[in-house]
Amino acid sequence: MDLKKFTDKLEQLNFSDMHLRDFFLTWEHTPEELEAVFTVADALRELRENNVSSKIFDTGLAISNFRDNSTRTRFSFASACNMLGLTVQDLDEGKSQIAHGETVRETANMISFMADVIGIRDDMYIGKGNAYMREVAESVQEGYDAGILEQRPTLVNLQCDIDHPTQSMADMLHIIHEFGGIENLKGKKVAMTWAYSPSYGKPLSVPQGIVGLFTRMGMDVVLAHPEGYEIMSDVEEVALKNAEEAGGKFTKTNSMEEAFKDADIVYPKSWAPFKAMEKRTVLYGEGDQAGIDALEQELLEQNAKHKDWECTEELMKLTKDGKALYMHCLPADITGVSCEEGEVAESVFDRYRDPLYKEASYKPYIIAAMIFLARVKDPVATLNKLVEQDTKRFQE
Amino acid sequence: MDLKKFTDKLEQLNFSDMHLRDFFLTWEHTPEELEAVFTVADALRELRENNVSSKIFDTGLAISNFRDNSTRTRFSFASACNMLGLTVQDLDEGKSQIAHGETVRETANMISFMADVIGIRDDMYIGKGNAYMREVAESVQEGYDAGILEQRPTLVNLQCDIDHPTQSMADMLHIIHEFGGIENLKGKKVAMTWAYSPSYGKPLSVPQGIVGLFTRMGMDVVLAHPEGYEIMSDVEEVALKNAEEAGGKFTKTNSMEEAFKDADIVYPKSWAPFKAMEKRTVLYGEGDQAGIDALEQELLEQNAKHKDWECTEELMKLTKDGKALYMHCLPADITGVSCEEGEVAESVFDRYRDPLYKEASYKPYIIAAMIFLARVKDPVATLNKLVEQDTKRFQE
Amino acid sequence: MDLKKFTDKLEQLNFSDMHLRDFFLTWEHTPEELEAVFTVADALRELRENNVSSKIFDTGLAISNFRDNSTRTRFSFASACNMLGLTVQDLDEGKSQIAHGETVRETANMISFMADVIGIRDDMYIGKGNAYMREVAESVQEGYDAGILEQRPTLVNLQCDIDHPTQSMADMLHIIHEFGGIENLKGKKVAMTWAYSPSYGKPLSVPQGIVGLFTRMGMDVVLAHPEGYEIMSDVEEVALKNAEEAGGKFTKTNSMEEAFKDADIVYPKSWAPFKAMEKRTVLYGEGDQAGIDALEQELLEQNAKHKDWECTEELMKLTKDGKALYMHCLPADITGVSCEEGEVAESVFDRYRDPLYKEASYKPYIIAAMIFLARVKDPVATLNKLVEQDTKRFQE
Repeated sequence: MDLKKFTDKLEQLNFSDMHLRDFFLTWEHTPEELEAVFTVADALRELRENNVSSKIFDTGLAISNFRDNSTRTRFSFASACNMLGLTVQDLDEGKSQIAHGETVRETANMISFMADVIGIRDDMYIGKGNAYMREVAESVQEGYDAGILEQRPTLVNLQCDIDHPTQSMADMLHIIHEFGGIENLKGKKVAMTWAYSPSYGKPLSVPQGIVGLFTRMGMDVVLAHPEGYEIMSDVEEVALKNAEEAGGKFTKTNSMEEAFKDADIVYPKSWAPFKAMEKRTVLYGEGDQAGIDALEQELLEQNAKHKDWECTEELMKLTKDGKALYMHCLPADITGVSCEEGEVAESVFDRYRDPLYKEASYKPYIIAAMIFLARVKDPVATLNKLVEQDTKRFQE
Repeated sequence: MDLKKFTDKLEQLNFSDMHLRDFFLTWEHTPEELEAVFTVADALRELRENNVSSKIFDTGLAISNFRDNSTRTRFSFASACNMLGLTVQDLDEGKSQIAHGETVRETANMISFMADVIGIRDDMYIGKGNAYMREVAESVQEGYDAGILEQRPTLVNLQCDIDHPTQSMADMLHIIHEFGGIENLKGKKVAMTWAYSPSYGKPLSVPQGIVGLFTRMGMDVVLAHPEGYEIMSDVEEVALKNAEEAGGKFTKTNSMEEAFKDADIVYPKSWAPFKAMEKRTVLYGEGDQAGIDALEQELLEQNAKHKDWECTEELMKLTKDGKALYMHCLPADITGVSCEEGEVAESVFDRYRDPLYKEASYKPYIIAAMIFLARVKDPVATLNKLVEQDTKRFQE
Repeated sequence: MDLKKFTDKLEQLNFSDMHLRDFFLTWEHTPEELEAVFTVADALRELRENNVSSKIFDTGLAISNFRDNSTRTRFSFASACNMLGLTVQDLDEGKSQIAHGETVRETANMISFMADVIGIRDDMYIGKGNAYMREVAESVQEGYDAGILEQRPTLVNLQCDIDHPTQSMADMLHIIHEFGGIENLKGKKVAMTWAYSPSYGKPLSVPQGIVGLFTRMGMDVVLAHPEGYEIMSDVEEVALKNAEEAGGKFTKTNSMEEAFKDADIVYPKSWAPFKAMEKRTVLYGEGDQAGIDALEQELLEQNAKHKDWECTEELMKLTKDGKALYMHCLPADITGVSCEEGEVAESVFDRYRDPLYKEASYKPYIIAAMIFLARVKDPVATLNKLVEQDTKRFQE
């Protein structure tokens, strides 16, 4: 086994600014930085598939803070940290004093004495999640500058109100592999479309993350949703600017059919309207439970008007050769399986199960690559060293 | 320190089919395979007692899924995984999306990208626990076959509705040591008997596991319980067949005295009637809480008719030389200590406390041995390598 | 990097009795033993700051048992264990069978088969916490003596009803560094004073721990509180005896001003009256919720009479050159920040934020040093070996 094709690629890329830098939003990183993440992720996977240890930490903690339920991202983060030698210590706010009004600054420092990484998922409230992450990052920076922390832990955004970079990057790495290279994506049409779900209030970070990232690759990105299901306008502007810079397109439509037509990739997924989520954030802030319940009822009724937004076989036939790559962040609401009427027909989902699972399998490597690039000074040298050391991941 | 006596023994045994195989039920394994587990468990204990590391994984995850409360098994699993170098990541369904209707297949794959082992305890519902484990195992097999998982995690049954193999194997290893070798067990009489408990609904997996395993050793196994406390008939048939093949006996009685008479080993422990547990499973499925409450009341009343099923000093006197080895999976309901009237008299329990704790101490090694044999291609070579490497478990 | 100044110091100290010994109360240890803890803590910090691994355990478990909510101590314990190579396994009594009447002795042994350390926080009930810890320690000693446990895990008191040694020792190490050495503390005046808080029932272990430890250094320790807020009289006696032996002072006053006057160090912090806490313990034992609620109301009213016990700028001016070192175990009740009226004025707290966080940063090292000294036979030799091995904590 050797990593030459990956280290050669890395040597052509400029990603020196990633060292000790947090990963908040994909659009804050240059295309070469993003490609460095994909390349390191592939290199780490190559190591593991050849039973070579990628442990770069002998000891060290990775703090996780899941402010919303999570199985997949929790396990992906645990896997990524384990692969690098970090031990995850969960900050469970339910169990901790943070729930009793402690300031973010103090807690951030108190938990970080041995922390190399802090991973946060905070996607529930519009205007809050990303802001909270930045506050944590600033707090530990201050602590580091004041000589309190021996290292400045880097922050990895495990999903916020704006972006879900570990998801969109894993999705993109899947596409890169499916299409045989990042250079083959230019001009490919991707339909990021809303889909009906019987549940309410699904986060916007996935569609936002997808249009914010996929437009970087010069793709023809179409965002489709019923009227009233707009995403954050800031992110739409990012997507427009991205498309222009990358020589691609970003368009919107209220027709699922139009989006699917000749698409190379479809990503049908439910989300809540941005304005409703803003309203919910205000209601939570006010502790107005009756208002929240009323909003939920209203949103469910609104959703129910759009049950025809389902990824059916008929719709799939509209795509390029009827064979577009179907994507989803999982779990999907599958009609007749996980719900009566949902985002996708059972037969469509079934046909794409293996690629969907494969898509998900990139997330641990994406997270590990983000950590690797943030912590390691000379990633090429360290990758080479791991190959030389040839420590077995497992003594078979 | 050397492991020669263990590796010599292993070289005489045929256990090649254990590699990459799950451990569901003891009676699915050959006697030589079971002896390989005992031998590796002893070898791992020898290593640890001599401060030699048995870490065979540099990184890697072990998934635990406790669908019922657990302290002992949780710590035994954690100890076993730690000893081998695996990091435990708990799948807490209360916290995870699995509670919201996600399919088993999907979750099993989503959590297994870096998993070498999955340990599951699911003993609450008759007909469900073992079936669930097999579904998980099939799911990760499919994921592995489809190239989604880089390794096929092996499943360890940490207690199901049918068997509790890590318990019965630890119990057996205790007996092997107490009686000076597996070859000394033939013809020994063991009384697996019901005992009164003021609590209701204790799992059947312990008595079933004991009669299913101990009959393999050519022992004279007596199952005793009041009428109405039958165990699964399938397991009784297994025990009968085992006894026949091993040249031992499997008999049943409704008299605790008869079972204790001349016994070399007694294992008095409460359990719920199989038929009642079947009924409870149906009631839970129907969400019939009133029915469940009524059943509980009924079972407590039924239990209360058999308060004389207590392991007293008088009963102990009936055993071989009055000195049978008293066993229990712990915690026991001790009369006058943990309850007013229970499974065992305080003086009996007190006299056997040290052996009981020793009995429990084998469980981490049994679990580690099951994992070792499932993951390692050439266990003898790997054991020898650990001795050669002589990495200290702890730099004293 | 070398550790010579630390190992030279250790060679002058007699701390041979610390090996395999639990750490319950600072006053059970000799001054030389305490200095050994400070010295090893500094040595471990030096190693980490120079990226040298201090991992002395290849595998092994550290059991944590937090019977009260905790973020800081939980993370400090996790950090300390990680630094030494131990994996933390939490005994969550809510999830475990211990909640169902299992005896302490049994559980202590059942969880300790692979445990090198047990860390317990149990500070809620007067007369219970420390007693519980000792019961656990005795239980594992018995298990070790009976050949059940292969190692005798050592117990670290992570806060009990009497003392909070990891806090007071971290506080002291902070002072040692602030004042340029342990030899500079003699005669320094420290004001351990009560302060107003809108919450009730804060543990007494911090003030008790401080007066019990700081009097060992020959300091002039003043304990100040309103009438009715007495601490345990046993601890006051310890402090008096300490002061006499060390050539320092231990006095009491009901005036915050008097305590602050010319103080070199101030430690204003709320706590509940000892007698009220005793009463609460009885009420809990009786399950008297109405009584508990009434007591809470009573204590809040009693607290509210002493809102003038706040660490203000005016009070700080009374201290030595107006520049006493302000200390707190955190989180503090900051007036206008975390509550309307609290323990400390915002401007005072803000001025001391960096030293306060630095103070907290010593705790992981203090805990690691306690474990190191309890487990390692020849600490100087092992420290030297870590330097020689020069394993990188992190492959930068």
